[in-house]
Amino acid sequence: MEFVSEVKWKPDSSVSELVAQFKANGFQSTELNKASSVLYKIWSQKAKVILSFTSNMVTAGLRSLFAQLISLDLVDAVVTTAGSIEEDIMKAKGEKFPLTRFRADDIELHEKGHNRIGNIAITNDSYGRFEGVMKDLTENIFSKKESMSVSEFLYEVGGNLSDENSILYQANKKNIPVFCPAITDGSIGFHLYLAKDKNPKIHLDVIDDFKKLMFVMSPDDTKGFIALGGGVSKHFGLLTTMINGGADYAIYMTTSSGWGGSLSGASTNEAKSWGKIKDDSDSVTVLGDVSINFPLASFSVLDRLKKEGVI
Amino acid sequence: MEFVSEVKWKPDSSVSELVAQFKANGFQSTELNKASSVLYKIWSQKAKVILSFTSNMVTAGLRSLFAQLISLDLVDAVVTTAGSIEEDIMKAKGEKFPLTRFRADDIELHEKGHNRIGNIAITNDSYGRFEGVMKDLTENIFSKKESMSVSEFLYEVGGNLSDENSILYQANKKNIPVFCPAITDGSIGFHLYLAKDKNPKIHLDVIDDFKKLMFVMSPDDTKGFIALGGGVSKHFGLLTTMINGGADYAIYMTTSSGWGGSLSGASTNEAKSWGKIKDDSDSVTVLGDVSINFPLASFSVLDRLKKEGVI
Amino acid sequence: MEFVSEVKWKPDSSVSELVAQFKANGFQSTELNKASSVLYKIWSQKAKVILSFTSNMVTAGLRSLFAQLISLDLVDAVVTTAGSIEEDIMKAKGEKFPLTRFRADDIELHEKGHNRIGNIAITNDSYGRFEGVMKDLTENIFSKKESMSVSEFLYEVGGNLSDENSILYQANKKNIPVFCPAITDGSIGFHLYLAKDKNPKIHLDVIDDFKKLMFVMSPDDTKGFIALGGGVSKHFGLLTTMINGGADYAIYMTTSSGWGGSLSGASTNEAKSWGKIKDDSDSVTVLGDVSINFPLASFSVLDRLKKEGVI
Amino acid sequence: MEFVSEVKWKPDSSVSELVAQFKANGFQSTELNKASSVLYKIWSQKAKVILSFTSNMVTAGLRSLFAQLISLDLVDAVVTTAGSIEEDIMKAKGEKFPLTRFRADDIELHEKGHNRIGNIAITNDSYGRFEGVMKDLTENIFSKKESMSVSEFLYEVGGNLSDENSILYQANKKNIPVFCPAITDGSIGFHLYLAKDKNPKIHLDVIDDFKKLMFVMSPDDTKGFIALGGGVSKHFGLLTTMINGGADYAIYMTTSSGWGGSLSGASTNEAKSWGKIKDDSDSVTVLGDVSINFPLASFSVLDRLKKEGVI
Repeated sequence: MEFVSEVKWKPDSSVSELVAQFKANGFQSTELNKASSVLYKIWSQKAKVILSFTSNMVTAGLRSLFAQLISLDLVDAVVTTAGSIEEDIMKAKGEKFPLTRFRADDIELHEKGHNRIGNIAITNDSYGRFEGVMKDLTENIFSKKESMSVSEFLYEVGGNLSDENSILYQANKKNIPVFCPAITDGSIGFHLYLAKDKNPKIHLDVIDDFKKLMFVMSPDDTKGFIALGGGVSKHFGLLTTMINGGADYAIYMTTSSGWGGSLSGASTNEAKSWGKIKDDSDSVTVLGDVSINFPLASFSVLDRLKKEGVI
Repeated sequence: MEFVSEVKWKPDSSVSELVAQFKANGFQSTELNKASSVLYKIWSQKAKVILSFTSNMVTAGLRSLFAQLISLDLVDAVVTTAGSIEEDIMKAKGEKFPLTRFRADDIELHEKGHNRIGNIAITNDSYGRFEGVMKDLTENIFSKKESMSVSEFLYEVGGNLSDENSILYQANKKNIPVFCPAITDGSIGFHLYLAKDKNPKIHLDVIDDFKKLMFVMSPDDTKGFIALGGGVSKHFGLLTTMINGGADYAIYMTTSSGWGGSLSGASTNEAKSWGKIKDDSDSVTVLGDVSINFPLASFSVLDRLKKEGVI
Repeated sequence: MEFVSEVKWKPDSSVSELVAQFKANGFQSTELNKASSVLYKIWSQKAKVILSFTSNMVTAGLRSLFAQLISLDLVDAVVTTAGSIEEDIMKAKGEKFPLTRFRADDIELHEKGHNRIGNIAITNDSYGRFEGVMKDLTENIFSKKESMSVSEFLYEVGGNLSDENSILYQANKKNIPVFCPAITDGSIGFHLYLAKDKNPKIHLDVIDDFKKLMFVMSPDDTKGFIALGGGVSKHFGLLTTMINGGADYAIYMTTSSGWGGSLSGASTNEAKSWGKIKDDSDSVTVLGDVSINFPLASFSVLDRLKKEGVI
Repeated sequence: MEFVSEVKWKPDSSVSELVAQFKANGFQSTELNKASSVLYKIWSQKAKVILSFTSNMVTAGLRSLFAQLISLDLVDAVVTTAGSIEEDIMKAKGEKFPLTRFRADDIELHEKGHNRIGNIAITNDSYGRFEGVMKDLTENIFSKKESMSVSEFLYEVGGNLSDENSILYQANKKNIPVFCPAITDGSIGFHLYLAKDKNPKIHLDVIDDFKKLMFVMSPDDTKGFIALGGGVSKHFGLLTTMINGGADYAIYMTTSSGWGGSLSGASTNEAKSWGKIKDDSDSVTVLGDVSINFPLASFSVLDRLKKEGVI
């Protein structure tokens, strides 16, 4: 039986020391500590890893960390939504997103052309320049090949970027697939429409990606699933763990506690009933803001992996 | 200035009387009352209406209500996710979903082949029969035409169903589009893959649906948006209100209060900064479970519309 | 095994019909239906009932409903916080609380002397007049007797009010105790301090109320607990069910899902580990805003009790 | 204008470096960074500081940190609930609290005599021994003086403890008041009842503490308020900032986003409408679990204060 122990400040504690203290601190700090131990098992055992995240985390500052994990060979497939794709490209092209306030005056922001996402804004100017960027990218990519799956398209996009903090750039370098089952759900959908309007032969195949997803991992692989936030990216990624016998390790981080029956709030426990996660898996759900909890959990594990020469 | 008034039980109150009492009851009951008054404006003014919802609401018992709203000519376009499509078809084919508990033993459920969604389960038997249903549907539909947009495909599916409580059936009858930007995000993705594996010419076009979405409404239309839950269905639907000058009326109902920056928790206020909703729109966000709040708000409005001969 | 059934609009549905439809609608609507069936058992079996609520529900319009339940002999003891006491008195004296917005400009409100509670405000004028009211009440009450328990004091306050929508008025008429373990936690604390400053002999005894609380019910009683919101009022009320062998029936309604370990979010399940609620009790936790969920659940039960001549 | 910057892992980052990176990371990480900068201002300017917290944080491992802050002269008054008092004493007497799971079987726990609080339990054995401890404490304290305010009583309790990780012990050493406006809300209420049953002259005065609270700070003081969790402890503490012209600095950390109108979810914005916090105050509300967020924010500030020789 383990007992609550108490957190006390020690000068210049490292993130790893704090996360270690969280082990017996109770409530979500204990769950966060467990998330770090599950992450350690996933990465030290070289499990096949699916990383899913929602676009708001790319709007926020987690994009570089995701790109870094890919560059460190710690991710085998990415699943996300259209907003992540757009903003990864925007940031790769130098766009900057102003910080604002959760209670900002939205009508004022509208007049300024600042589109709010929580306490962050994306300017109309950024979207304006993005139109030109997408025009060049689609012309460039579809001029070589008119029909491809969404993940192939995103591979090509990554090949056209040159920012090591870009998720698509690193995914291209490492040749891991980026799945985006709802690729048209954003301004990128509009830009794809414009491209197709010029060249009706253009075709992005969503069904081919389902096949590709299934074969990202096999029943024999040790499988790890990292779901940051919920929605389509989390759900789509879980299809391959389910088809392949369930994840051996899973970490969910979300703000939703699921009392409304949403997939976003569905816990790792619920996932066991589906076989998305194995009954005897090591899995944990951490409630709270991923912008705080994921850096905390992952930094402490990366420190340990570096000490052990794994990365 | 309006003041708090107090709720008191009157024997045999109708839903409409209770919702009327909510007007000055405070907190979310006041927001719910506002939602009903916005719904009344939307429907009595015959605004163009987009209805978006997440699949868990179709898992739950809201499916018939959504189908009923379509049959009453109160919806011009539907946006949802793959789970809704699957479960609408399953239910149209007579599948029944057992009720369970939020704290059910998920390993026990797994052994029983019951897949849990909050306090509801879908059995493996239902998914097994669904495979046959999809085999027939895809053969039937793609034998006539190999390439179509997702909404065309869903129109055809609706034409193959014969359940008046089905969303797809009613959408087909009323010839309104059902958009599903992430159509492969579920077992339906697997069945589409099997169909395409047999006939590689099969092609579901997601880009064409973006065009169709844009022209669902025009800048001159009075526009209403009803977002139940969040995610891709909410976000995709808002693209057309934004492109067409912003919604005049909007109702969001969600369990997410958005402190993590998720789109699911993005409020109608935040939407104004984007122009998704007009600055001077009549709009409201109601926090709580849609399985309670949407029937409450809509029943009271439908009663009034019936009295006025609008429906 | 019970299955999900579907909600459909029927013209002029009563609240009772809607709550009945919720039974198999899933998610919180199913929990709400269960809450109504537990309430029915509590009230039809004439169980001993503790009703606890937080002050924001008295700020809102639930006060009259609480008073009505007392007047119908459906409550044996009330537990709440100081804010409820203040606002029950204020409203009994004719104070009106303006409605405002959740996103109101709080600095503007401050300049206007409007103190915000969610989307409700209490004006400084109301607090100003309340000072006079409390001066008279304390002089009047303590002139007869200088030392008493908090519940005795609140009994006396109720005797000085003449508003049938007042909780304290009805509790006095029905001679049921109103417990307020943190009576000084509000402006009423200041007014009690002023009274005691004039007459140091004044003494409000909190320990005596603990004894009184213990004997509100006995181990032999059938015991029902209705906890609306959390905090001290919920926790204090549960002490007597625990001491007396646990509640046979319990309904919790709250917005807190308890992932932070708060008592406010503690579920009826957690209460079983404490013996606050019997292992075999009929109990349910409903997540969502009490301003919507409690009227819904209680109205439907009151209708039924009236038909059966119980009330 | 400040822009989003991105978080990237650097080997062996310190907590301070991570919190610094959070500044422009967006969402709650940005709010957490702001909380640390407000804490820095509070403590470096030697503001008068009220620290309020709910009992679950003492159940968890934050107790030693709170005691440490008192010992470092960084707190001028504590406000909390009865559970904190009980568990601070229990832990000072060597009781250990087992860790359990949020989804533990509560009936099993009940049979084992483990009372669950989230993912922590308190055993019946601990409560059994606590009864003896309280018997000795009350006999010892009330034998010298039969009537005192709650804070005087808690001062005496602290004088009887000898654990430097105890909040009451450190508060006694530093002679700062610990307010507990609902002292009878727990098993301690039962033990006080037993003591009073033996000696009816025993009297704990709650009104005297209101006076004491008012004079903890003056209008001329620079005032800081740290509210961890909500409820009575938060509300009672804010009475003195309001009476004394409003806090200059405030940090709220909570899991409640306040859409139900609860005080627990009331934001620092809402507090401005009341004058609890000054209009021009530096204040921030951080959503998430305090067991993670408070150590993060405070450790980084304590490191800086140490470097600057302030502590």
